Amino acid sequence: MSEPASEDDLIATIFAPIAGPGALGLRDDVACFTPPPGCDLIVTNDALVAGVHFLPDDPPASIARKALRVNVSDVVAKGAEPQGFLLAAALPAHIDMAWLRAFAQALGEDARAYGCPLLGGDTVRTPGPMTLSITALGAVPTGRMAARTGARAGDAIYVSGSIGDGAIGLHARLGTAPWAARLGPASRAYLEDRYLTPQPRFALRHAVRDHAHGSMDVSDGLVGDLAKMMRASGAGARVELARAPLSAPAREAIALDDGLFETAMTGGDDYEILCTVAGGDAPAFEAAALSAGVQVTRIGEVTEAGGGIVFLGRDGAEQAFRRPSYSHF
Amino acid sequence: MSEPASEDDLIATIFAPIAGPGALGLRDDVACFTPPPGCDLIVTNDALVAGVHFLPDDPPASIARKALRVNVSDVVAKGAEPQGFLLAAALPAHIDMAWLRAFAQALGEDARAYGCPLLGGDTVRTPGPMTLSITALGAVPTGRMAARTGARAGDAIYVSGSIGDGAIGLHARLGTAPWAARLGPASRAYLEDRYLTPQPRFALRHAVRDHAHGSMDVSDGLVGDLAKMMRASGAGARVELARAPLSAPAREAIALDDGLFETAMTGGDDYEILCTVAGGDAPAFEAAALSAGVQVTRIGEVTEAGGGIVFLGRDGAEQAFRRPSYSHF
Repeated sequence: MSEPASEDDLIATIFAPIAGPGALGLRDDVACFTPPPGCDLIVTNDALVAGVHFLPDDPPASIARKALRVNVSDVVAKGAEPQGFLLAAALPAHIDMAWLRAFAQALGEDARAYGCPLLGGDTVRTPGPMTLSITALGAVPTGRMAARTGARAGDAIYVSGSIGDGAIGLHARLGTAPWAARLGPASRAYLEDRYLTPQPRFALRHAVRDHAHGSMDVSDGLVGDLAKMMRASGAGARVELARAPLSAPAREAIALDDGLFETAMTGGDDYEILCTVAGGDAPAFEAAALSAGVQVTRIGEVTEAGGGIVFLGRDGAEQAFRRPSYSHF
Repeated sequence: MSEPASEDDLIATIFAPIAGPGALGLRDDVACFTPPPGCDLIVTNDALVAGVHFLPDDPPASIARKALRVNVSDVVAKGAEPQGFLLAAALPAHIDMAWLRAFAQALGEDARAYGCPLLGGDTVRTPGPMTLSITALGAVPTGRMAARTGARAGDAIYVSGSIGDGAIGLHARLGTAPWAARLGPASRAYLEDRYLTPQPRFALRHAVRDHAHGSMDVSDGLVGDLAKMMRASGAGARVELARAPLSAPAREAIALDDGLFETAMTGGDDYEILCTVAGGDAPAFEAAALSAGVQVTRIGEVTEAGGGIVFLGRDGAEQAFRRPSYSHF
């Protein structure tokens, strides 16, 4: 059949196969979840709207991965272990069973990869754009969450992976900028995939839990998110943007259009981990990241609040940003 | 100002004042929640779309109450204690700060009334209809959740409050049916309010936890939901619909149009608790409900699966339903 016969059929055929044991086979209105003893629960929610957070004709597997991964990224940035998720899906009438099967298959693969099974949710019709809301649960030993408020003066500031790929990749994908056509095809494909398929730094979660003072994922732009963390922590910072890690394709794009450096620093969609570590603990953190197989780069230091939040540009001079991060409002 | 300046401002001015301690002042990407020891966590999610689950010009306070209460209803129907909720709100551009203030104030009042504080969420823009997704958390002593699968042959079947008010109230509110104009104004106001403002049976949660075998809330229609619970439990049932509790205004509407009896039995939006209790435990359950101040009515018995799910109509004869419950698909 091309159309789901009922919400119950939809749940039984599409979503029950990817559900975890706590989901009660998705036959109840609720999931029942026994939290690991001695742990705090981390709960987080991210909503995605077609035409706003993804393109309506993005492949269903990409939409599924993005919806789950942006939430997994929040959980692991706190040093927590993913435990499961709930999905609220408001579906337009044109979504058929083939689309849903591809969506659920990718969601199920990610759920297994991140140890984060489907626990429940809700499926409703909408006359508007597809809207997906995922609530993810994580567990961390009691009192050990790496909070956004935890940065302390003297900490080293680290960022994982590379910054700016997603923001440059979105522009490349939209295809309107003159530089996009001049990028090597492999670079363009890499950048577009970094936009389309976030890679949460799952492997870094234990290093974060064991070493980070303050931590968050970079989703709205490095400059704005770093400033948010420092304000939440009541701290200042001195950051050398020349040290912000750039991928080779991002460097290639910036060489074609120097304005893309600012795009990279402020554009968002990175899903890298930004965290601070006590100066003396930095070697141990770097070693833990290395053994987890995740590159981390030291980009600056936390200072007293009075020092302000200072970003040094590539020329070594202080740099101000008109629009330090992405905002919906 | 009439427009929120940024998502951060929106969070700080509108939502932070109604947040619970685990919400970390809504300054993190996540909430951190320490589950009560010795408990299972109940997690549930319901999504509401403007034009589908509520009318776009419903008052913001009503929309807020409905969004939270349909979730609280799921939690308390499991015998669990509400712990908090996350809200994902996809907002159209015409929603202004005055609307959001009224919405958040009602949400905050309900959060206090049900001991269910705001823990976190996400606020995004949508070019489509307003879409609200709430994930609620509850806690119940380990292994004590009253599941939809728990009904056993020999159990008495109970339903709380009165059935059909919400479904009849929706029709009255739409104002298209000839009987609506002939209803007394107080009856019409009562029924419309029962549609607009669900009343989760919060006070019944301990009686359910202590006495119910199978339990769920009635949201999609008594007949269909009861059949769902029996199928999930691998049981049959014999139900006398003449015993289904009707409010005086619902009886008044049915006297004007007899077809509304079927609407009442199958229409949904009741948010009453449907549960089964061992025959010998029925007096104790009734006493617990009485002392909680919630009316419960015994409407039938659970039978062996082989007996089928039998609904006896008001004439005592077996009755079949073309459309036993509301379905979006």
